[in-house]
Amino acid sequence: METIAPLAKLIEHFRSLPGIGAKSAVRLAYHVLDMEPAKAQALASAITEARERIGFCPVCCNLTDVNPCRICSSDKRDRSIICVVEQPQDVAAIERMHDYHGLYHVLHGALSPLDGIGPDRLRIKELLSRLNDEAVKEVIIATDPDVEGEATSMYLARLLKPLGLKVTRIAHGLPVGGDLEYADEITLAKAMENRVTL
Amino acid sequence: METIAPLAKLIEHFRSLPGIGAKSAVRLAYHVLDMEPAKAQALASAITEARERIGFCPVCCNLTDVNPCRICSSDKRDRSIICVVEQPQDVAAIERMHDYHGLYHVLHGALSPLDGIGPDRLRIKELLSRLNDEAVKEVIIATDPDVEGEATSMYLARLLKPLGLKVTRIAHGLPVGGDLEYADEITLAKAMENRVTL
Repeated sequence: METIAPLAKLIEHFRSLPGIGAKSAVRLAYHVLDMEPAKAQALASAITEARERIGFCPVCCNLTDVNPCRICSSDKRDRSIICVVEQPQDVAAIERMHDYHGLYHVLHGALSPLDGIGPDRLRIKELLSRLNDEAVKEVIIATDPDVEGEATSMYLARLLKPLGLKVTRIAHGLPVGGDLEYADEITLAKAMENRVTL
Repeated sequence: METIAPLAKLIEHFRSLPGIGAKSAVRLAYHVLDMEPAKAQALASAITEARERIGFCPVCCNLTDVNPCRICSSDKRDRSIICVVEQPQDVAAIERMHDYHGLYHVLHGALSPLDGIGPDRLRIKELLSRLNDEAVKEVIIATDPDVEGEATSMYLARLLKPLGLKVTRIAHGLPVGGDLEYADEITLAKAMENRVTL
């Protein structure tokens, strides 16, 4: 059996990416060999460049290629609100909404004692130092609506409330366009509990 | 909305790969940013290196990083048989079987008049020149069992038979482990037609 070492290596690399199985990895590798050399080179450079030029904002810990990031340095953002999220992807999701104009703080994870992730593994120290310095009045906790996200939310609430801040949590409820009949019990209970007056 | 240019560019590159949708592209890009820098660099290098070091064998037109390729230069292969396939991936599939010991020829496509792919777009000239030079006795046509593959097979058969060669086609029939009940009519008809005496 003929083995082409650089091809086998490329397949192996693609295979290690999330969501790429054995067959997809082979398909991607052959596609790269079929690309124009300049395009393949551009793909390789995009990977290197993204990794080299993107780092963490020293203020909010989000990904950025400028220091501090464009949101932290913007004069159009409301500096009295910080929205705390787990991942940089969550910032991108909230920004897509075009409706939130405060600042962010990225924890880079959620509390998960079983996985050995305690408060010291999250960017909580950085968050606390911002609360001392800045004119922050409200912290919105927008961690994921799962067990780890809830635990993180409760931990942060206990930590931040004594500082005299307004601490809020994004609402749980039925997703818009969803079907009440198929909602799980916990979501439905939360939706009832958090009902609003019309 | 904050846009991180190198991140957007990387997402765009991933998006252009086959089988990678918008969400997978975003997921892959964030994964790259989350990788250790050395691993991201290794991925980029694997792409560049594969593209730079792998080319086409001047004899069989398969992908190779040596010239001629390991199969064409091997003294363990039967040089009297050439198996003609559409793509380099097809060579890899047949080699995985560990049961074929002849040579290969990769056409890099199949005839498809609707897509403007005529005989001149395939590596047929290269195949003919091998038949003059070498001690070839049989050509096995192993193009895909679809319309384009069949058309290519018929075209090649007409071209090669006058040269006094044995020209064969891989068999059509029921896949092993398949279910007769669910076989399509054309496959079933071919399986009946090509029945063998036990």
